[in-house]
Amino acid sequence: MVCLAEMEFRPKLDATAESPLYRQLFDQIAEQIRSGRLARGERLPATRELAGQLGLNRTTVSAAYELLETEGLIAGQVGRGSFVTGGSTPGVDWTTVLERRDHAAGSSAAHWNRDVISFAVSRPSRELFPLDAFRASARSVLERDDLPDILQLGSPAGFEPLRRYLMDEARRQDLAGPDDDVLVTNGCQQAMDLIGRVLVRPGDTVAVEDPIYPGLKNLLTGMGAQLCGVPCGQDGMDPAALERVLDRHHARFVVLTSNFHNPTGGTLPAAARRSIAETARRAGVPVIENDAYGELRYSGEALPAIKQVDEQGGTVLLRSFSKVSFPGLRVGWALGPRPLIDRMRAAKEATDLHTDQLSQAVLLDFAESGRLEAHRRHVLQAGAERLAATLAACREFLPAGSRWTRPEGGMNVWVRLPEPLDAGELLARAQRAGVAYLPGRYFAVGRFDPGALRLSFAGLTPSEIRRGLEILGTVIKAELETASQRYEPSPAMV
Amino acid sequence: MVCLAEMEFRPKLDATAESPLYRQLFDQIAEQIRSGRLARGERLPATRELAGQLGLNRTTVSAAYELLETEGLIAGQVGRGSFVTGGSTPGVDWTTVLERRDHAAGSSAAHWNRDVISFAVSRPSRELFPLDAFRASARSVLERDDLPDILQLGSPAGFEPLRRYLMDEARRQDLAGPDDDVLVTNGCQQAMDLIGRVLVRPGDTVAVEDPIYPGLKNLLTGMGAQLCGVPCGQDGMDPAALERVLDRHHARFVVLTSNFHNPTGGTLPAAARRSIAETARRAGVPVIENDAYGELRYSGEALPAIKQVDEQGGTVLLRSFSKVSFPGLRVGWALGPRPLIDRMRAAKEATDLHTDQLSQAVLLDFAESGRLEAHRRHVLQAGAERLAATLAACREFLPAGSRWTRPEGGMNVWVRLPEPLDAGELLARAQRAGVAYLPGRYFAVGRFDPGALRLSFAGLTPSEIRRGLEILGTVIKAELETASQRYEPSPAMV
Repeated sequence: MVCLAEMEFRPKLDATAESPLYRQLFDQIAEQIRSGRLARGERLPATRELAGQLGLNRTTVSAAYELLETEGLIAGQVGRGSFVTGGSTPGVDWTTVLERRDHAAGSSAAHWNRDVISFAVSRPSRELFPLDAFRASARSVLERDDLPDILQLGSPAGFEPLRRYLMDEARRQDLAGPDDDVLVTNGCQQAMDLIGRVLVRPGDTVAVEDPIYPGLKNLLTGMGAQLCGVPCGQDGMDPAALERVLDRHHARFVVLTSNFHNPTGGTLPAAARRSIAETARRAGVPVIENDAYGELRYSGEALPAIKQVDEQGGTVLLRSFSKVSFPGLRVGWALGPRPLIDRMRAAKEATDLHTDQLSQAVLLDFAESGRLEAHRRHVLQAGAERLAATLAACREFLPAGSRWTRPEGGMNVWVRLPEPLDAGELLARAQRAGVAYLPGRYFAVGRFDPGALRLSFAGLTPSEIRRGLEILGTVIKAELETASQRYEPSPAMV
Repeated sequence: MVCLAEMEFRPKLDATAESPLYRQLFDQIAEQIRSGRLARGERLPATRELAGQLGLNRTTVSAAYELLETEGLIAGQVGRGSFVTGGSTPGVDWTTVLERRDHAAGSSAAHWNRDVISFAVSRPSRELFPLDAFRASARSVLERDDLPDILQLGSPAGFEPLRRYLMDEARRQDLAGPDDDVLVTNGCQQAMDLIGRVLVRPGDTVAVEDPIYPGLKNLLTGMGAQLCGVPCGQDGMDPAALERVLDRHHARFVVLTSNFHNPTGGTLPAAARRSIAETARRAGVPVIENDAYGELRYSGEALPAIKQVDEQGGTVLLRSFSKVSFPGLRVGWALGPRPLIDRMRAAKEATDLHTDQLSQAVLLDFAESGRLEAHRRHVLQAGAERLAATLAACREFLPAGSRWTRPEGGMNVWVRLPEPLDAGELLARAQRAGVAYLPGRYFAVGRFDPGALRLSFAGLTPSEIRRGLEILGTVIKAELETASQRYEPSPAMV
């Protein structure tokens, strides 16, 4: 600890002044404390010591100290001396405490006006929730004999009947090998978080899609990972580009979406899946296959998961009930090689003990009763209509030169407006006109196309989609005209 | 990449041997690869280069490389050379990948034989769960008009009606100041996890209770924190010892339990709460007040929380529905200064988006309907009986020289057996005799008393408690007799 006497502080005392010496000393020490120059926790010299240094009577110093103590600026401790306790920022200075770690702040999407047609959130439509089917499953859980087990502290691995169901399903679909295991998580997001905890060390390179889902970007960068973006479009991650990245960088793992990538809607063709599995295997790099949207295929043939074509056990598959049923119930799972799942389970226990068991039991009943499949058929029909409405409205209302992906499922279409349009700059105008979306910059890793934006269509009806894109088209066309006037050389310059 | 030529590897080739040179070269490179000395991804020298180095014909080297490629041990890439692809562990070597980060493996309590009377788990009795009251609250949620909002993607901060309820309750109890906010978490465990994510940098010192709840020890050490144990007994953490620790170390924060600490059952007296708040304030160190058990006071007067006596806003209070109602539903909350809660909310969003909303809604109804309070009264009565049975049985069955805490609530009593008894060594014998507990080593930070053990009594009936301690007493006395014979000097030595 730094003593007062060792500091630059030398009180200026005037024995002839009206104010007594003890008061002058008090004022000047108090000022040092209040300004923060004398910090909390610092020890003041003993009264005898300071008196000697300043050529004062010891009672003068004692009187000054007493006043400081009365004011709550210092506190005496028996046998240890007096310490600075008060000052300009008493107690915990949260700004300083929190500044010390540069944690990625979660970038929540802005809150939109309720009258705005919002393409901004990738989530299902609340109008489609099958409330009676949900109630039936919940009531059936309430009548179960093992209800006390559901309410009691559970296993970090997940509610055992749900784990068995997920493992049986994975075997039936030829997804799980003999060395695989399942871990129930709070949705795919927590599965990614646990993988990050188990694998990422600060400074590690992780190969990801570019553009990327912002929740994943925030999570990985918050853990200190260096993201290496691999271009991702209509056909998902580019396998040749991934190969180049894995040749050049020592990547800790690669994380990608096999079906209906958020934000692009891109889906890996079968050959690309095999090629990526092979590239990763050769490099000895794990593949994290994020498949939150896989159940939402509206047209075309389902493709085998990378987990399925990778026979070497280097892939972990992440799935979830959230997108296909109820996002408010946080239940997903990871299927992968046992050594990794074991470590994720230990991390899960440290994080939050286990996933909520009421929702695990309700979703198990929802799936086993066939209600999930019935609901999924309903959602697929609605999704197909919404996707078709989105693509048709893009054709009808977006200006010439616009491009967009044509997904076969999921919740998102990726649009690229022609130059010189900037989707970020355009957003405020679009919102005023009554339509919202997320501009491309939210999703950028390394490359950034200012004209890019994401349209999340699943939460809107076909007529809202059409109306929303009509508004957006009008705003864009107005902007294009302004821009062309702005860049047109004025006559005097010709 | 390290080239073959730069390694210690020098093939021993014999032109006079029966095996042709290309085959000898193949054998020796293959052995290097299979043994792992040549790692996956390493580049072999060009054939011309290696031929020159070894004084061989280039076709000899090419033939060896072709054979290596046929065997799947290397692969040629156009324009880049040949790379090691195979070896002893093709694909992802999970053991190696996972070894690179020394993550704290979660130490789940061993699984006990069902016939054993187990004092090992600190959780409520499943027989006490008020199933009908729970069903009534769940059914009431199913009939809510806002059921679709509950099923839809929610807010990282928590289900808004629950947050409002918790904030109103905190204000009513004079716990929340104008600068405070509430964050809903998956129980207290996740609240601690989020605080760790926001505050702990590897190498940071954190002041904790010694003994400590193992879930907290694993969590913090897994984040790279250095734990500094502050002795904790019947009266909770020792304030004078904490002061010494904060004087000597630059602690990132202090985390402690105000009521019915796990494992000791210790509770901080009112004066200690004020003293700790003041000590931490003076040091500018945040206090994390873990209060999972506070609602379970069976006797004595409730004491003000540290959060309440700390008027400087340096304390965060963690509470939970888990211990007083249903641990299988993972809902707790953090109440603290807004800057910290803001950062925790961002971390929460990155971790798992938000806490399960079905359980949040059911527990809100359970609380607002008065069912929680009715259940709590029932739990308090049962808990008082179980605690009394535990203390009475300790008196009756534990050997002279044993000491134990006398908590006024919670779920745990801390026992210290007389020397030379070792509670860890005794456990196997106790389990064979039909009783289980957790020995002190699970809870040790720096100090370790081999005679210490935790008795978690809440999940057992008074008669099970009595019978369990009778068995334990018998085992201990037998051990003491053996030990005294073992240490008794034999006649010849006198």
